[in-house]
Amino acid sequence: MSADPGFFTVVDAQRACREFSDAPVPDALIDRVLDAATHAPSAENRQPWEFVVVRDPQRRARIGDLMRRAWEQHGREHSVGRLSPELFTAVDRGATGSISAAPVLVVAAADTTRCLPVTVPSSIFPALQNLLLAAGAVGLGSALTTIATAFADELRTVVGLPEAVIPVAVVPLGVPARPLGPPRREPFAAHTHRDHYGTPWTTP
Amino acid sequence: MSADPGFFTVVDAQRACREFSDAPVPDALIDRVLDAATHAPSAENRQPWEFVVVRDPQRRARIGDLMRRAWEQHGREHSVGRLSPELFTAVDRGATGSISAAPVLVVAAADTTRCLPVTVPSSIFPALQNLLLAAGAVGLGSALTTIATAFADELRTVVGLPEAVIPVAVVPLGVPARPLGPPRREPFAAHTHRDHYGTPWTTP
Repeated sequence: MSADPGFFTVVDAQRACREFSDAPVPDALIDRVLDAATHAPSAENRQPWEFVVVRDPQRRARIGDLMRRAWEQHGREHSVGRLSPELFTAVDRGATGSISAAPVLVVAAADTTRCLPVTVPSSIFPALQNLLLAAGAVGLGSALTTIATAFADELRTVVGLPEAVIPVAVVPLGVPARPLGPPRREPFAAHTHRDHYGTPWTTP
Repeated sequence: MSADPGFFTVVDAQRACREFSDAPVPDALIDRVLDAATHAPSAENRQPWEFVVVRDPQRRARIGDLMRRAWEQHGREHSVGRLSPELFTAVDRGATGSISAAPVLVVAAADTTRCLPVTVPSSIFPALQNLLLAAGAVGLGSALTTIATAFADELRTVVGLPEAVIPVAVVPLGVPARPLGPPRREPFAAHTHRDHYGTPWTTP
């Protein structure tokens, strides 16, 4: 992988990774992806993000336990009829152990002493998207997961977040267990309108 | 600009643009940035985004009016003490006319018939971040603005969004009126922790 691969090459190849090899993830790669994360915009440029990079096996296991419990108590039954069988199997495996088996889990949070609570999503998800893209750019797999925040207080305890710091997502980082397939997306033009909803962007 | 500029070059240069030249923005560039947007992840891969690309001057003026009213009624007084004088001036100009003067305004929305309402932020803001980055990659300026959603029903009326389609943001696209300066961000390590909040990522 080049030191600075093509922007659209990276964007067009993005796909969630939920199974990882044991290959180590050097700090230098984590530096690069978190530096990219913090170049995202945020409301009022307040940059309210906090990242806890978890390598400690015990803490990763506890986060994995939260994911599994949230999935078994709330997610699985809801999702079984909504996801394709293939995606369901991948998500089920991910939530019950393969995601938390990644060598690194990044707990991403928002410090509400530095931003208005209403701006947390618009200030944190762009940074998370940068983090995911940058992971792909340096050859790592990653995924945006929020299920562990169903037990926000317990997640907060595992990584010691103060009361005002709200956990938003857990992103696994690692070398993919196998090559990721191409992303599956509908054509953008199917959801794009010209000046008014319902007027197709493209003339057929 | 190369057809596929370096990923980190694009990410590291991102900065909000709030003043635009009159130079036209071809449909082909809009195709490229929206195609990039729709490569972002979304909860359950539901891709609930809808984009209305507004070139019509009357509709842009009406959206600009919503921005100005939201800013004057709710934003300005709140922000004057929070933003740096330089940022305040840029945001004030943006909200009172320079943003809606962009040749293109993209109204980004979420179709809640295709996703759970609670997943709207995690499903739309990553796509918006792709859109902003891709704009930079093709030489356009852009910015993530949400202020017009303070008048969500009126915004919905301007572009004809059905009841279930929730407007999330308005993104101006255009050639920057002048070169954008470098982004201003705190070092990522100032907000990164090792295994536990409060344990610095880097050893000083």
